[in-house]
Amino acid sequence: MSDVVAAALVARRDEILERLMALLRLPSVSTDPAYAEGMKATREFLMARLKEGGLEDVRLLEGGGQPAVTGAWNGAPGKPTLIIYGHYDVQPPDPLELWKTPPFEPTIRDGRIYARGASDVKGSTLIAVETVIEFIRAGGCPVNIRFFLEGEEEIGSPSLRSIIDRHPDALVGDAMISADGGRASTTLPTVSVGSRGLTALRFTLRTASKDMHSGRYGGAVRNANHELARLIASLHDEDGRIAVPGFMDDMAPIGPREAEDAAALPVDEAEFYGGIGAAPYGDPRYSVRERITLLPTIEVNGMWGGYIGAGSKTVLPCEAHAKLTMRLGPGMDPVRAQARVRDHLLARAPKGVTLDFEESGNGTPAFTLREGHPLLAAAETVIRRTRNRAPVRARAGGTIPITAIFKERLGIDTITFGFAMPDEDVHAPNEFFRLSSLEEGLRAWPLLLSELGNASPEALRAG
Amino acid sequence: MSDVVAAALVARRDEILERLMALLRLPSVSTDPAYAEGMKATREFLMARLKEGGLEDVRLLEGGGQPAVTGAWNGAPGKPTLIIYGHYDVQPPDPLELWKTPPFEPTIRDGRIYARGASDVKGSTLIAVETVIEFIRAGGCPVNIRFFLEGEEEIGSPSLRSIIDRHPDALVGDAMISADGGRASTTLPTVSVGSRGLTALRFTLRTASKDMHSGRYGGAVRNANHELARLIASLHDEDGRIAVPGFMDDMAPIGPREAEDAAALPVDEAEFYGGIGAAPYGDPRYSVRERITLLPTIEVNGMWGGYIGAGSKTVLPCEAHAKLTMRLGPGMDPVRAQARVRDHLLARAPKGVTLDFEESGNGTPAFTLREGHPLLAAAETVIRRTRNRAPVRARAGGTIPITAIFKERLGIDTITFGFAMPDEDVHAPNEFFRLSSLEEGLRAWPLLLSELGNASPEALRAG
Repeated sequence: MSDVVAAALVARRDEILERLMALLRLPSVSTDPAYAEGMKATREFLMARLKEGGLEDVRLLEGGGQPAVTGAWNGAPGKPTLIIYGHYDVQPPDPLELWKTPPFEPTIRDGRIYARGASDVKGSTLIAVETVIEFIRAGGCPVNIRFFLEGEEEIGSPSLRSIIDRHPDALVGDAMISADGGRASTTLPTVSVGSRGLTALRFTLRTASKDMHSGRYGGAVRNANHELARLIASLHDEDGRIAVPGFMDDMAPIGPREAEDAAALPVDEAEFYGGIGAAPYGDPRYSVRERITLLPTIEVNGMWGGYIGAGSKTVLPCEAHAKLTMRLGPGMDPVRAQARVRDHLLARAPKGVTLDFEESGNGTPAFTLREGHPLLAAAETVIRRTRNRAPVRARAGGTIPITAIFKERLGIDTITFGFAMPDEDVHAPNEFFRLSSLEEGLRAWPLLLSELGNASPEALRAG
Repeated sequence: MSDVVAAALVARRDEILERLMALLRLPSVSTDPAYAEGMKATREFLMARLKEGGLEDVRLLEGGGQPAVTGAWNGAPGKPTLIIYGHYDVQPPDPLELWKTPPFEPTIRDGRIYARGASDVKGSTLIAVETVIEFIRAGGCPVNIRFFLEGEEEIGSPSLRSIIDRHPDALVGDAMISADGGRASTTLPTVSVGSRGLTALRFTLRTASKDMHSGRYGGAVRNANHELARLIASLHDEDGRIAVPGFMDDMAPIGPREAEDAAALPVDEAEFYGGIGAAPYGDPRYSVRERITLLPTIEVNGMWGGYIGAGSKTVLPCEAHAKLTMRLGPGMDPVRAQARVRDHLLARAPKGVTLDFEESGNGTPAFTLREGHPLLAAAETVIRRTRNRAPVRARAGGTIPITAIFKERLGIDTITFGFAMPDEDVHAPNEFFRLSSLEEGLRAWPLLLSELGNASPEALRAG
């Protein structure tokens, strides 16, 4: 049955690609209110497709922010119910001037589709949607389905908990498959067994009540840019090791399984650094794979202060701003990590320098899929069949908040089964998705749903 | 004669105020090409007034950038020829949201006129223009006049040398009076005897060739914001002392005259810091007056990198930017100071971090009017008469590039005789100019021109 479905999907490849391009034309940037229309149009697009494809109970799940899109199929009594996760929001496209073709005009070049959201994660989300629709068309799905297509993944899922709590009926399932969380290698087959956590901190630093003339005050007043620079510089040592006291205290030590998995998927440093034109960097006690998947980070994603227009302005600025996010290793508590960084900044701010922190949510802990989980077994079987070798177990350096939140709220586990690859410039200009990944996904997803149809709901729930 | 002229000017006060408001409505921001129309309109406004007032040879002096406005009066043969300097350009008005009334809609509140450029320096410039016009109307000026109204003061006068070199005929004079360079105290009468120099440095820092996803690369790649912060933090020590090796090596030591003048004009620290809501700061070996008028500074006027829009973005930025200006103490060479900072930054940039410096001109050295100069004697006489006590000699912390450049190119000295006060929020939101200063200026300028009519051209030129 899954072979028939996979063949039908591959035969419909051009039609599915057209649909993906239409989806990518809709500018669904969740962080910026200017894109509200694009967000709405994207939700409507997905709901229309789910209804057309035979899903039931297609609707929006409101939680106070951007609603999620859901749809169900209940035709496999006694079989497991799988929640399928994807997200329809994308990162902002700036800096716009660095895009070769406009971010919301998808363009195919050299077997790749270039557009904001192509890789993260409209491509993989549509693979999942079309797979379920094709099963329904062919007579029925091997498992019961609940789609959960989120609209706030790129902003840290602020109302996800609220959506889950307000709609307990819509989200009853035995386990989850996520279309987000891509592949770790462009060459080796991999299966994802975990991800880093994430928490954020945004603040404004002030040294005076107004901007000053550098000729009138320069030499006798603190410059907000200098003070912010000093605080940011204090977060790391010269080797890039985090210098915030206590930040990593609750992290689980890297064990033999983690070290072994990381070693099985060595990073080709020449390719890794060559591809981004950067020099090697990071904690020398760990391999690059460990640095980018297991170690925590503190990154200043944005900072600004004073005059940033054309030319010069001899202003002595009273205010400067920073936006930070921290990636978290296994075991680290997001709220505690956030507090450690906040405390460090406050402790180092000299007299006369104030810091105002913006409310920026609680964050998400790291996630790990335990050894022997039926989700993991099913994914490994599928990858072994489609790639003709056993997959390497890989942790993702990014964060899939949904995995941790569904575990916490509903007690269910997640396997990530996305088809993005690690070099596709997500969150950056010229993001792309490989057309070969589209086809690979359309072959693998039917198999995965079939495999999970053989698992018992109880075993899935037991984890 | 000067009393008659002063009385006539004071009688015309309301008319002159109307004219000042019209001038302030013209948005003449020199640093931003978006204001080209406002710059042009301002030049036309000034040329029309000079022509109407009986000045001859009214025209634009081109030098490749924003042209200067000139006009002459030659009716006092044998008397000195004075160049009168002012500038018609203003600082950018941002941050716009902090203005109580719009920056280019001048508004009178509590005896003050609020507008961008009111204090710096359209108010004082118009006082000079109207004084000369009133003398001409009354039968003639005690000295010959050349107006030189610049359009690039707020961007460091990049084409001033070129204007002077291209128009040697228009700028022949024995000395210069500058309407720019205001008063040092809101209570004590002062006369200005010098100013700090200024030089600029702007650069872009890069750690990679493209922005990266912090989940995919975080922990193994240098973040441009962190690197920029580290470099900026290295410019000063904890007390705000400059930490750039060799930066101050060529500075003239602070002598007994400088120390005495600084001590005669002590800064009221409670008022100084209270007025800007800041805590005391700066090199503890010097008084606040010395810090803000004699010591050099390095200020980061603007810095930015990564995502600075609404919400969060988990980008790991490859690029960050900084705009610096340095105030210079007496004796310091601007090009050398600039090179010292550039070398310091380059020496501290680690492998894999590149810095690209933007061309930002040569800068201006500090200026000092020597003891016993006839310009100084004339100004002291006028202030003694109008304020009934001898003025305190004050150095300006700001920079009047014109004084150094006219000395260098034409060998003439400058007295600054502006009526701005030090608390008028120049270069900041809600800039204002006191209406009382307008009247005071209209009384003092006629006296100054009369006094200088008694000086010999040779004595003025001899300095």
